[in-house]
Amino acid sequence: MFEIVVDVYGGDYSPKETVAGALAALNDYSDFSLVLTGKKEEIGALVGQNDRVTIVDAPDEITNNDVPTEAVRNKPNSSLVAAIDYMNAHEDAKAFVSTGSTGAVLTAAVLLTRRIRGVIRPALAPVLPTVKGDKKVILIDCGANVEPKAQNLLQFAQMGCAYAKALGVDNPVVALLSNGTEDKKGNTLNKETFPLLKESGLNFAGNIEAREILSGDYDVIVADGFSGNIALKACEGTAVSMFSLIKDGIMNGGLRAKLGYLLMKPVFKKIKHTMDYNDNGGAVLLGLNKIIVKGHGASKAKAVRNTVLQARDLVLRDIVTKISGEITK
Amino acid sequence: MFEIVVDVYGGDYSPKETVAGALAALNDYSDFSLVLTGKKEEIGALVGQNDRVTIVDAPDEITNNDVPTEAVRNKPNSSLVAAIDYMNAHEDAKAFVSTGSTGAVLTAAVLLTRRIRGVIRPALAPVLPTVKGDKKVILIDCGANVEPKAQNLLQFAQMGCAYAKALGVDNPVVALLSNGTEDKKGNTLNKETFPLLKESGLNFAGNIEAREILSGDYDVIVADGFSGNIALKACEGTAVSMFSLIKDGIMNGGLRAKLGYLLMKPVFKKIKHTMDYNDNGGAVLLGLNKIIVKGHGASKAKAVRNTVLQARDLVLRDIVTKISGEITK
Repeated sequence: MFEIVVDVYGGDYSPKETVAGALAALNDYSDFSLVLTGKKEEIGALVGQNDRVTIVDAPDEITNNDVPTEAVRNKPNSSLVAAIDYMNAHEDAKAFVSTGSTGAVLTAAVLLTRRIRGVIRPALAPVLPTVKGDKKVILIDCGANVEPKAQNLLQFAQMGCAYAKALGVDNPVVALLSNGTEDKKGNTLNKETFPLLKESGLNFAGNIEAREILSGDYDVIVADGFSGNIALKACEGTAVSMFSLIKDGIMNGGLRAKLGYLLMKPVFKKIKHTMDYNDNGGAVLLGLNKIIVKGHGASKAKAVRNTVLQARDLVLRDIVTKISGEITK
Repeated sequence: MFEIVVDVYGGDYSPKETVAGALAALNDYSDFSLVLTGKKEEIGALVGQNDRVTIVDAPDEITNNDVPTEAVRNKPNSSLVAAIDYMNAHEDAKAFVSTGSTGAVLTAAVLLTRRIRGVIRPALAPVLPTVKGDKKVILIDCGANVEPKAQNLLQFAQMGCAYAKALGVDNPVVALLSNGTEDKKGNTLNKETFPLLKESGLNFAGNIEAREILSGDYDVIVADGFSGNIALKACEGTAVSMFSLIKDGIMNGGLRAKLGYLLMKPVFKKIKHTMDYNDNGGAVLLGLNKIIVKGHGASKAKAVRNTVLQARDLVLRDIVTKISGEITK
């Protein structure tokens, strides 16, 4: 029996949807218990009577308007900081889930949680869908390190590979995100990273353009946190834009388009499921000695449930030990 | 009467589709003539008899396998270098169109063409579709400057605004591409650029995430060439991936999905038209004293025609003078 700690505040639909989602995950499996941090009374009213739920009172909130470093230092009674403190104090608390401000979650986790021995910098690694059915791709880093060094990117690749292997991928294919496919393409950081990846013993496929991210030809795509964030958000934004264009087309396309839509509904549903962050789980912060999963801010109960189950899955797959093994190899 | 110079080689469908597209554009308007560079005999056979076409014999080719700087220096008889030489020698040659290697076109143009007085570095500026109907957005830079300075980004914003105004946008809204919307977000370059844009007198809306690129809320999005390239390619790649998922869904969705597709065909056609680079023209290299348009490598005749017409349009709108005015303001 282990614990998963959930920061109940900070998400767009906190606390109601967050609590509902966490409880739904708890109902699915009996091998873990929940620790919920935030306003005790509010949470208590939402949870009711449940032996497998501990509530930690932390009445303060950190929002997107707070400066992360200041907020983490000045709000020890925030649901976020209390959650991390709890995790540090309890060995059985193996994982932490938050749908709060990415900046604050990253800052709190990096400042307050112990790193895996040998890891210089943790990195944020979402799992993205690809056009190849169930094949997924890990994009690392997506925002934890705005200006990393080549040595950091090598570790991102190693951590990404450990993560991919833990998710069942044999000999993951690694690529470096660049502005062209030629070996010498890229900025100074890319040019310094390329030879490190080439000599790393990893299955390195070279530079790729952002056009290839969703191709399904790669398992781990390595980037600095700034470019990785831009790539991730551009993919998300384009998917949302395409759905919006399709919707407009149906609304303005008369009866014919509406009828077509009804017939194609299962197809759209499947694509929406494939591309939807609510169904793809949260981004994992790799490199720390606990599992930290950052769910999307706009997560409703269903997405929170998926994120908690993702955290449970990573505890069971013992991702922390696996990353440690890859780094000290 | 002015001339548009077209590099007939280097594209994926050169020379046949390139020549066909250029001639189609020539047929549309009588206010310009064409200069085609490449293998004279091959081009001559494709063109036939035409008083408004000059062919410049340049038997060498520069391909994607060439290192741009070496190729531009060592292949003076390439269709690309010959085209730029011709333009430099003829005042009436106002514009240049190529579907060849982006790296080579950028290198040749930057090395061999004169810059507009005051412009430190030219920048590549494609025009992208948005979800708001006919509203477009200019993304500058997308690859000409992998590691620019803040002062360069300020000029990219100015050139982008001059371009947007020339295309009919009043008081264009400028945004800086970053990994978050807060004023202090971004890497060192962003943090240095932000105050320059704020003080520039431009209509600066602050930092945006890549999620907003296609939102239609902005007219000019400023980025370094590395991040801009990643954003552009991620948008393109996601659009292609979504079409591929829809196609798979139709193929595997049985009769119902196929029937739905037939009914929705006009909707898809319109979206494909909106998102298709073949219909959105080429990326313009802004900051030089001639108009340089880089069409997509995979351009067929229709796309080449659009790109030549885009070059003609920019000559008529006198974009070079307008950029000069914005820079020396």
